[in-house]
Amino acid sequence: MSDYSAVKAALREQRIETPSWAFGNSGTRFKVFAQEGIPRDAYEKIADAATVHRFTGVAPSVAVHIPWDRVDDYADLAKHAENLGVRIGAVNPNVFQDDDYRLGSVCNPDPAVRKKALGHLLECVDIMDVTGSRDLSIWLADGLNYPGQDSIAERQARLEEALAAVYERLGENQRMLLEYKFFEPAFYATDVPDWGTSYAHCLELGEKAQVLVDTGHHAPGTNIEFIVAFLLRKRRLGGFHFNSRFYADDDLMVGAADPYQLFRIMVEIVLGGGLDAASGVAFMLDQCHNIEPKVPALIRSVLNVQEATAKALLVDAGELRKLQRAGDVLGANAVLTDAFATDVRPLLAELRDEMGLDPDPIAAYRRSGYAERIVAERVGGTAAGWGA
Amino acid sequence: MSDYSAVKAALREQRIETPSWAFGNSGTRFKVFAQEGIPRDAYEKIADAATVHRFTGVAPSVAVHIPWDRVDDYADLAKHAENLGVRIGAVNPNVFQDDDYRLGSVCNPDPAVRKKALGHLLECVDIMDVTGSRDLSIWLADGLNYPGQDSIAERQARLEEALAAVYERLGENQRMLLEYKFFEPAFYATDVPDWGTSYAHCLELGEKAQVLVDTGHHAPGTNIEFIVAFLLRKRRLGGFHFNSRFYADDDLMVGAADPYQLFRIMVEIVLGGGLDAASGVAFMLDQCHNIEPKVPALIRSVLNVQEATAKALLVDAGELRKLQRAGDVLGANAVLTDAFATDVRPLLAELRDEMGLDPDPIAAYRRSGYAERIVAERVGGTAAGWGA
Amino acid sequence: MSDYSAVKAALREQRIETPSWAFGNSGTRFKVFAQEGIPRDAYEKIADAATVHRFTGVAPSVAVHIPWDRVDDYADLAKHAENLGVRIGAVNPNVFQDDDYRLGSVCNPDPAVRKKALGHLLECVDIMDVTGSRDLSIWLADGLNYPGQDSIAERQARLEEALAAVYERLGENQRMLLEYKFFEPAFYATDVPDWGTSYAHCLELGEKAQVLVDTGHHAPGTNIEFIVAFLLRKRRLGGFHFNSRFYADDDLMVGAADPYQLFRIMVEIVLGGGLDAASGVAFMLDQCHNIEPKVPALIRSVLNVQEATAKALLVDAGELRKLQRAGDVLGANAVLTDAFATDVRPLLAELRDEMGLDPDPIAAYRRSGYAERIVAERVGGTAAGWGA
Amino acid sequence: MSDYSAVKAALREQRIETPSWAFGNSGTRFKVFAQEGIPRDAYEKIADAATVHRFTGVAPSVAVHIPWDRVDDYADLAKHAENLGVRIGAVNPNVFQDDDYRLGSVCNPDPAVRKKALGHLLECVDIMDVTGSRDLSIWLADGLNYPGQDSIAERQARLEEALAAVYERLGENQRMLLEYKFFEPAFYATDVPDWGTSYAHCLELGEKAQVLVDTGHHAPGTNIEFIVAFLLRKRRLGGFHFNSRFYADDDLMVGAADPYQLFRIMVEIVLGGGLDAASGVAFMLDQCHNIEPKVPALIRSVLNVQEATAKALLVDAGELRKLQRAGDVLGANAVLTDAFATDVRPLLAELRDEMGLDPDPIAAYRRSGYAERIVAERVGGTAAGWGA
Repeated sequence: MSDYSAVKAALREQRIETPSWAFGNSGTRFKVFAQEGIPRDAYEKIADAATVHRFTGVAPSVAVHIPWDRVDDYADLAKHAENLGVRIGAVNPNVFQDDDYRLGSVCNPDPAVRKKALGHLLECVDIMDVTGSRDLSIWLADGLNYPGQDSIAERQARLEEALAAVYERLGENQRMLLEYKFFEPAFYATDVPDWGTSYAHCLELGEKAQVLVDTGHHAPGTNIEFIVAFLLRKRRLGGFHFNSRFYADDDLMVGAADPYQLFRIMVEIVLGGGLDAASGVAFMLDQCHNIEPKVPALIRSVLNVQEATAKALLVDAGELRKLQRAGDVLGANAVLTDAFATDVRPLLAELRDEMGLDPDPIAAYRRSGYAERIVAERVGGTAAGWGA
Repeated sequence: MSDYSAVKAALREQRIETPSWAFGNSGTRFKVFAQEGIPRDAYEKIADAATVHRFTGVAPSVAVHIPWDRVDDYADLAKHAENLGVRIGAVNPNVFQDDDYRLGSVCNPDPAVRKKALGHLLECVDIMDVTGSRDLSIWLADGLNYPGQDSIAERQARLEEALAAVYERLGENQRMLLEYKFFEPAFYATDVPDWGTSYAHCLELGEKAQVLVDTGHHAPGTNIEFIVAFLLRKRRLGGFHFNSRFYADDDLMVGAADPYQLFRIMVEIVLGGGLDAASGVAFMLDQCHNIEPKVPALIRSVLNVQEATAKALLVDAGELRKLQRAGDVLGANAVLTDAFATDVRPLLAELRDEMGLDPDPIAAYRRSGYAERIVAERVGGTAAGWGA
Repeated sequence: MSDYSAVKAALREQRIETPSWAFGNSGTRFKVFAQEGIPRDAYEKIADAATVHRFTGVAPSVAVHIPWDRVDDYADLAKHAENLGVRIGAVNPNVFQDDDYRLGSVCNPDPAVRKKALGHLLECVDIMDVTGSRDLSIWLADGLNYPGQDSIAERQARLEEALAAVYERLGENQRMLLEYKFFEPAFYATDVPDWGTSYAHCLELGEKAQVLVDTGHHAPGTNIEFIVAFLLRKRRLGGFHFNSRFYADDDLMVGAADPYQLFRIMVEIVLGGGLDAASGVAFMLDQCHNIEPKVPALIRSVLNVQEATAKALLVDAGELRKLQRAGDVLGANAVLTDAFATDVRPLLAELRDEMGLDPDPIAAYRRSGYAERIVAERVGGTAAGWGA
Repeated sequence: MSDYSAVKAALREQRIETPSWAFGNSGTRFKVFAQEGIPRDAYEKIADAATVHRFTGVAPSVAVHIPWDRVDDYADLAKHAENLGVRIGAVNPNVFQDDDYRLGSVCNPDPAVRKKALGHLLECVDIMDVTGSRDLSIWLADGLNYPGQDSIAERQARLEEALAAVYERLGENQRMLLEYKFFEPAFYATDVPDWGTSYAHCLELGEKAQVLVDTGHHAPGTNIEFIVAFLLRKRRLGGFHFNSRFYADDDLMVGAADPYQLFRIMVEIVLGGGLDAASGVAFMLDQCHNIEPKVPALIRSVLNVQEATAKALLVDAGELRKLQRAGDVLGANAVLTDAFATDVRPLLAELRDEMGLDPDPIAAYRRSGYAERIVAERVGGTAAGWGA
């Protein structure tokens, strides 16, 4: 069994980034159900993110999505965040919600649309300069709905060209994280469908280009922890968009669908050195709380990542390696399952107590009256959502 | 080789129903791209459906979706359809786009919501009485996003109760088609996930309850033609919602993703007697044309069903049976592949000519000026979409 | 929190059946890796099963597979089992390993083959009469590799006929469990692909026909606990073949791939009354230990089912129902996740102690010297495997 | 419409390699059904391959599998092939059928096993020197059944080391094709699960390392033609193992499950220049004819690849590009579907006639008496299979 103080030290250093858009309304193509107390702008989203951090102590940054979080003065937004005890994290460009992007953004057959999309990507680096963000988190909705609709190969060439231009623009301490997704919103083909495509582009671009793994973006049966281990070993794992899914890109709370998979991913992270800040692995959430209240869902999600990490830290790496080398299949497997079977909630409660936090963040949030306050205060205006 | 005149006679009798909602704007959760010339109301949708029929000759009815197609006077709407040479087909209730339905409709834990949902289902039968529609086409978005969210078993009991009430209300020549779907918009569990669930409910309800097969609503690897053959044999195949998909419920043009699968489905239909009007099998489209123009996409879809049907009719059933009984795997398979490899476009062109239609409906539609006319005329107002 | 003594009482009554074939060698189509100490006949397999029971206390029966376990005198085999403290459980016919079955068994186009297959099924009921087994566990490998190879509908008719003949033959206290499987060894179509097909046949046969759920036999994305809840509610859940899988029918140790799924299944069992002996739900393992030693793998599997059951018993059903009815998504979900997060190993150790067992069955087995003894003793002869 | 003489010229040059092992008995883990007339050794397999070539005219080489095709004198085997009008193609090492390989070959935790496996790979290059084969076709069955069983990262390091040693050994005109497979026979993780892993290794090795795409080795929903287009563009597509599948690695006749997918793959090949001999793309079959006769199944498979290629050659590339650039989704898609709908059998019959072949190879084979002759002659000895 590992040393608990070392486990707690590691957990104390872990940082989990919340996504501003998860505080707004979201839904499926069938319906966005409205909730009460939803933020009306980026400032209120950051206030919610700060609340998640206040109760968990490990979520000190919030990712923004442009133009959903467009403001006149990003320095002021960053200052607002700082005042609330958090900071602005990754910047996420959006090149999929304009009618011009019907056939794609940087892969569009029309050069004018490609130029517009590239302009937006570059604008987001400008914003990063102001907010001090390290990561440009690129997800492209580009793809095809029908065979033959466009040339797969030419679209790769267009993609290369745009990524190179953005890469060129990055500052010394800035990175580009290239996310992949195997379907949706394009149905037949996507232009960055898998980690292999993302990795290939990153290799050609340079070391500031890293692969972003969204845990919901894989074909069924894909072993995500293999990808994590592979990329970590090659120093190309930029970070995660955590969420969980049963079939498609469900964007449910991370750990809600398959907590053992999340644990296995964190085991690879721990064994591969991905918890060290120097590794550069960013732990970010990317979720949609379509039917449940947003703030407690995000608190729960942060806790889920923490619990999986704590269990992964309990894996006896020395014993594991010994049994693996001896070819003891059942023994080596049991090292993992024993760690997973452990109830780490007491350990985490203890840690929170040491950090001056309530040991039960969900209960503390409920008692805090925050939920009631935002319902009362956020009246009028337009609730934030994906479309705004 | 089958007799061509018999093939043509069968094709001449086949009826394919278009869905009113496919003429409106649609999209994914990420974006609904606006198109020009989109109908603003049910009347204009029916005009578009009539146009599809005008060029194909085999799409004389159009399904409606309530409340998307709500009008003050359904008799007048039916009259309008008749004036344009078509009629109103299946009525599709919508119990998923009201905030009340966040946790389900007839399976909702709240009895008041269940009552409201049931009321809407019954209202749709009222509409059927007026429009003369035979089929109430029920798809429920009910389900769960998270394990434990609600009781799977109790929801089945609520479902049974609601379906029984609707069944009771059906007139002598009316039917209830119960659609199933294995995910989306609910991610963890749906309340009618598969044909087995639908079939079980239909058995308990009675013969006017029939299973509706949407070709995009299955788990990967599901053999749809097995389901078709099974239900036909048990006289419980109410009909189809045709579309195609690569991974999820993509709602692409039928036949666009896997034309051989569509052919195999039609082979089971032909061999099982499902082309006979007496079988009651309804061939309906249910599609979303997110990035392509709607009217020609629907014409193309009708043609795709026709082509698959024509190829299925070319299967030499006697030879097939002989080879099957002899255990000649390659020979029996070749009977199918030979029919599929046949180019049936000349046969269909000939048929259209005999029916007084242009042999190339897509080209004829393009020449007709209809596309330009609706763009010019449909200015102002609100384009129809899923939300209205 | 539930009462621990009630939890322990329920766990004490649970029975998990081991499969004789899991003690023999198995593998993939690529290779069967030989292990040492493998039983050479049914008697030795039963000795291994008795060993699993000796250390776990809840595995007092062993399923047999005919002809793999064919003996001259089944009464003697049953006596042998009894002497070792176990009994013979379900009888599993095998109608897929004779060259005659290349195109199927009871669905074969050749009536002579169908007759032969039916004869074997009936022979298995004869064996049940002798062994006192309650359950005939039918899995058919019947299906098609190529479209058109045989008539799906006619094969259903042949299946109906055979099942009816077997059903007719069942004694008063005997049951037929009809297993389904969506692919393998047939690739294009299987004749009992899903629970719906099995359920439909069972409904037509009568109450002694029940559905058997093998947890590895579903298409990706299938919600197994829905099926369990549905069948339990209809009193048609005959039992389980437990195992786990990542993609196909991997037949790994139950709980090894997705322990949270196993827990959710057991939650439905507990909530639906399936733990009551009166429910008739049989908990059987059906696994292949291709690369790991068999006996400890089966002990581990029994423990995994127990742990999942224990956690399911810890679900606060009253609180769950209250939160479900209130529409509290996060709260209701947390009732499940709290139970799952609990470390039940101490509770189970305590239970075993009360039952006079070693609290750590795996360690006790290792210390027992049984593994070394069978390696030493079982020399010569032919190791048991699927082929014999 | 393309020029038919150019289409025929391209088809005349296409080469499709048959696999020696497909002429032997094969099956699933459940059963290998024996057939009559099966070759007893490599010489007889090559005779069967030569027969396929005799009737199709485009299958002049046969891949071998070592040790299944082990002979004392490979020069003599090559001479035998030459005498029959064919030649030996790719050499396929087998490092998965020895008990030593239970936990892997070159990724095994035991250095002695790794050394043995590497030795076999190198031995296969020796054989290539003798047979004049260009391609070493490496598929590794390495992987894990259980989480934690071995270190994913360390196994990658071992893999790198072994591949580097083999690469070093390659002669000037020799290549290494690295195949990937996402599951089976390992269930939890495979060591080369996807094209990204294979591509990454190939990049590190050098230009003689190329990716081998087996069309049955992908997760559901994977767009194979994207991979083909990507690799062709990067000049890293070494070739194909063609076959078809409905769910897993079914190894059915290519084109039997989804002929439209095969067509789309060939469209990317044609558009990307992959039909030019200079591209180095090898078109190889890798199939198992478990229930159907082998030789005609392979003839049919060769024809299926030819038909898909012919249809792909009919795609009007200029028109396609024009419509793609104009953003005409329906028009561009129709260029593909029109080519696919064309019946190319007459064109291929004409081509065969020009090549001095029977226009209907299947019928000609049936008339030839070859099937009867091998049944009569191949009596005694051991039928070839995967195990020998």
